[in-house]
Amino acid sequence: MKPQVPKYVTIKALLQARWEREMLRGDRLPSEKELCEQFQVSRATVQQALALFEQEGLIRRDQGRGSFYIGPQEPRTRQEPSRPLEAVIRDRDGTETRVLRRGIERPPARVAALLGLPRDERVVVLERLGLVEGAPLVFIYSYLPMAVGQRLLESEAEMSQMSLASVLNDRHGAGIDRVDQVIAARLSDPMFAQELGVDVGVPVLEGERVYYAGERPVFCALSYYRGDRHYFTLSVKDWR
Amino acid sequence: MKPQVPKYVTIKALLQARWEREMLRGDRLPSEKELCEQFQVSRATVQQALALFEQEGLIRRDQGRGSFYIGPQEPRTRQEPSRPLEAVIRDRDGTETRVLRRGIERPPARVAALLGLPRDERVVVLERLGLVEGAPLVFIYSYLPMAVGQRLLESEAEMSQMSLASVLNDRHGAGIDRVDQVIAARLSDPMFAQELGVDVGVPVLEGERVYYAGERPVFCALSYYRGDRHYFTLSVKDWR
Repeated sequence: MKPQVPKYVTIKALLQARWEREMLRGDRLPSEKELCEQFQVSRATVQQALALFEQEGLIRRDQGRGSFYIGPQEPRTRQEPSRPLEAVIRDRDGTETRVLRRGIERPPARVAALLGLPRDERVVVLERLGLVEGAPLVFIYSYLPMAVGQRLLESEAEMSQMSLASVLNDRHGAGIDRVDQVIAARLSDPMFAQELGVDVGVPVLEGERVYYAGERPVFCALSYYRGDRHYFTLSVKDWR
Repeated sequence: MKPQVPKYVTIKALLQARWEREMLRGDRLPSEKELCEQFQVSRATVQQALALFEQEGLIRRDQGRGSFYIGPQEPRTRQEPSRPLEAVIRDRDGTETRVLRRGIERPPARVAALLGLPRDERVVVLERLGLVEGAPLVFIYSYLPMAVGQRLLESEAEMSQMSLASVLNDRHGAGIDRVDQVIAARLSDPMFAQELGVDVGVPVLEGERVYYAGERPVFCALSYYRGDRHYFTLSVKDWR
């Protein structure tokens, strides 16, 4: 069995992760042409990838009307322990966080939903890189509602803190008292592979966090840890 | 940026995960010839992969003497929460566990070390597949010291229980009171990709568990969850 990953398989895996974190059921998919340009591949390759999605019932293609996102039929299996997985490199020596990009824009539809915002409302987006001893460890997208995010935009020092949640609580009284986190395995995406210093298509750990004050979402973050540099460890007493 | 993963990159990622879970510092690596046969690729491709390992200081190649495993220089970053991540599908309806293979053999060196066994001591090895509503979700390698494992080999029903730890405690008084678990992102390996029903090189979540009775390791298990079918969720109160 050859280990080479066919182009269309890699593209499918990348798009699946992307769409799953960005799209809601019924959203229109990018055109084949856009996808060809984005990945610099042939129409045939894109069509092979879309055919896989269709086979799995993850998308719907309507002649003339375009293609639409459906998403996983059955929810994924879950495990729900109840203890912290807080920012991994915050407390380590020789660590830093670099702000690569900041902007005010419309977030992915799913992110807007996570934040309880109308889907065309703009938010503050931060793209940051966490390094340990100069080596990239984690790439972090943070999405903050305007009222919350604009305070951070005023201070480079605050944006460069590993834990935005701590900054928001300590300096802006955000009152964050809960974090919901999802951990998944993904392939590294061209959107951040270069910054992480990895090839596209290698494994990364995805950590999606939503920070709450009571029942109100304060902000959310998507973190991509280098699979070859990070894992999560747990010691479990009541393992039943 | 093309999403295609070059053969040698995929091979490198696969071998890195494999060797990291199987080898100890100083172990001899398979010959280039063996690797060519294993992956059905050219010598040149294998050499490209090994060159990457060497660049990263993960292996040492001695002219004439062969190649040896060194492993990661700096330990990975870790997070250590303290709550259960127990067998994900154990409590769900429509789930089953199939025993694909059972054997008595020498475990990978690192597994022997995890179990506190001399590295040439043989153990009971079980390869099992966990399914939800007929669809593969997780592939599990279990390694059990002879005294513990042979009890299980006597009973198909016991081997087919999702949680061997529960069986060992309830029916054999194993006294397991702690589980250490590591979660990592990996690419699916030819060793189990087909059983999981995925292409080689797509992401999977690796869960490595060591079960203890007091300070004594009772057995260990390596689980590979389909990255497209499973993730871990956490709700965190004291997130600081």
